[in-house]
Amino acid sequence: MLGIDPGLVGTGYGVIEPVAGALTVVDAGVIVTNASLPLEDRIALIYEGVRELITAREPSLVVLEDLYMEYRFPRTALLMAHARGVVCLAVRQAGVTLLALAPSQVKSAVTANGAASKEQVQEVVRRRLSLASTPRPSHVADALGLALAGLSRAGVVTPVRRPR
Amino acid sequence: MLGIDPGLVGTGYGVIEPVAGALTVVDAGVIVTNASLPLEDRIALIYEGVRELITAREPSLVVLEDLYMEYRFPRTALLMAHARGVVCLAVRQAGVTLLALAPSQVKSAVTANGAASKEQVQEVVRRRLSLASTPRPSHVADALGLALAGLSRAGVVTPVRRPR
Repeated sequence: MLGIDPGLVGTGYGVIEPVAGALTVVDAGVIVTNASLPLEDRIALIYEGVRELITAREPSLVVLEDLYMEYRFPRTALLMAHARGVVCLAVRQAGVTLLALAPSQVKSAVTANGAASKEQVQEVVRRRLSLASTPRPSHVADALGLALAGLSRAGVVTPVRRPR
Repeated sequence: MLGIDPGLVGTGYGVIEPVAGALTVVDAGVIVTNASLPLEDRIALIYEGVRELITAREPSLVVLEDLYMEYRFPRTALLMAHARGVVCLAVRQAGVTLLALAPSQVKSAVTANGAASKEQVQEVVRRRLSLASTPRPSHVADALGLALAGLSRAGVVTPVRRPR
């Protein structure tokens, strides 16, 4: 299960698989692009990075956050959408199913509470994956959260109802 | 010279070349995607369409409209940006130079007036290309305007200073 959080500056990704009854982070990181490069070069780096990731990890499903309507920074959102476009293309070309989840769907799949805070989601992700701390940058934590939500919706894990 | 006006529903394109002293529309049209298809399929159709266009027409330069900050329909703008992302990718992969022009740059390159109306630009485009009427849909006219602006900036044509 591969979660991807697209962004032009950094595209976070996280691959989680159930291994011997425990959830294992198989791969996680950020595809970083240098701001001094032209947009088309940065877009191409994200596309190539996602292609390589899918080839290497062979996910059965890729989970993205669905578009929502209110972005605080319109320019950043437009650039994110360029990155998201080539991520969708790479997933489609690999023949892998794409699942887009609204933020509330991610929250309820992970914590059983569609109104959970970002911190609550990240804390459940940290505990479910037996990590010492929340992954940084937040793009990685968000990508792992998407992958966990994908596993939850696939019935592999159940939401943690009372994150402490 | 290839101008592209990306959109998820329709991506307009126009290829203009100077032939025997006159500007000729070598190719123009719209890559249309069916709204019943998943986003990733529509994105892939736009990507393939642009790739085929570049292979067939071998443009020396591709001209896009630069991003600006205020879009009237944020969701439409985000979907346009998905399309624009894969257009940028296709151009980059073909090794063709990409030129992004602000709306005012397009206007001044075509009409010598950065504050010209959309109608004034379209009228100059129509006359310069010896067309009986303004191409429809407007995505095509806009793409031809971008290609003409590219030719103007390359010194092939000069702006028409007083469109009638």
